[in-house]
Amino acid sequence: MSNKKDLKLRVKTVVGHMKGIEKMIDEDKYCIDIINQITAIQSSLRKISDQLLEDHLHSCVKSAIKRGDDEEVLGELMEVLKHRTQK
Amino acid sequence: MSNKKDLKLRVKTVVGHMKGIEKMIDEDKYCIDIINQITAIQSSLRKISDQLLEDHLHSCVKSAIKRGDDEEVLGELMEVLKHRTQK
Amino acid sequence: MSNKKDLKLRVKTVVGHMKGIEKMIDEDKYCIDIINQITAIQSSLRKISDQLLEDHLHSCVKSAIKRGDDEEVLGELMEVLKHRTQK
Amino acid sequence: MSNKKDLKLRVKTVVGHMKGIEKMIDEDKYCIDIINQITAIQSSLRKISDQLLEDHLHSCVKSAIKRGDDEEVLGELMEVLKHRTQK
Repeated sequence: MSNKKDLKLRVKTVVGHMKGIEKMIDEDKYCIDIINQITAIQSSLRKISDQLLEDHLHSCVKSAIKRGDDEEVLGELMEVLKHRTQK
Repeated sequence: MSNKKDLKLRVKTVVGHMKGIEKMIDEDKYCIDIINQITAIQSSLRKISDQLLEDHLHSCVKSAIKRGDDEEVLGELMEVLKHRTQK
Repeated sequence: MSNKKDLKLRVKTVVGHMKGIEKMIDEDKYCIDIINQITAIQSSLRKISDQLLEDHLHSCVKSAIKRGDDEEVLGELMEVLKHRTQK
Repeated sequence: MSNKKDLKLRVKTVVGHMKGIEKMIDEDKYCIDIINQITAIQSSLRKISDQLLEDHLHSCVKSAIKRGDDEEVLGELMEVLKHRTQK
């Protein structure tokens, strides 16, 4: 997995933001402000997902196709792509 | 904020799942499995956001409209609704 | 329904773009170009949906809450908001 | 392009549904009903986009990788995947 350090940092940042959400709920902060924070976290998660997907394309998908073993890896990829847009 | 306890439990669950993601990255787990986990977390986050939105409609939006003070609260609500679908 | 003329113009524009998609498929255009056109159409549809939602908030939701008849209209609104993000 | 006939039929169906939306707006139908129709159309569009993407993976992406010419096609693919989730 390339850029592992960067990925882990992004994930830690999301964990920190999620703890912030917990605090906002605890302190009865305004719902709209909490919803906007969640929307920002979802955007960060999508970027982490994009980065993993890019990694996957350039490693596993590429080598599977080169081996002529593409049916399974492309089928799996389509399932992920369908679910990503329905989250 | 109604059902605060339930909301906080959901948020704690997401924090736990995010730590699981960090571990998966650390252990070089298969990218597709990590992406699917992130998609599941995004779905949980959307449910938390839905719950907060429902709360907001039945409390702040309702009372603002009853006071005749709806312009700002409805404008703010639309901004949130637009961003939620673009996350 | 306010700004009906504008809404109908937007819808006609989407119909025109959809006919363009049909032509692109007919002429075996590059898949990526067709997918990008569909993404643009989805964005236009979301804006039409946003406009209708804004209209609904300022008319039906507002008057129902003023009448004290909010349970059904807010329940209905939440269902729409949940489905919009799962499309 | 495989299953071209099926793709064109799906696109024609969406065009028909869009004309239905125009009629609903003309007849001042209830906003929520129109919004739900638009959500259904967005779901149909996403399925057409999925089908084109699947075609693209099994044709252009696969042959480009086999030729060793993957940088551009994978970069292009990532751009589409990023935009699809932000529509």
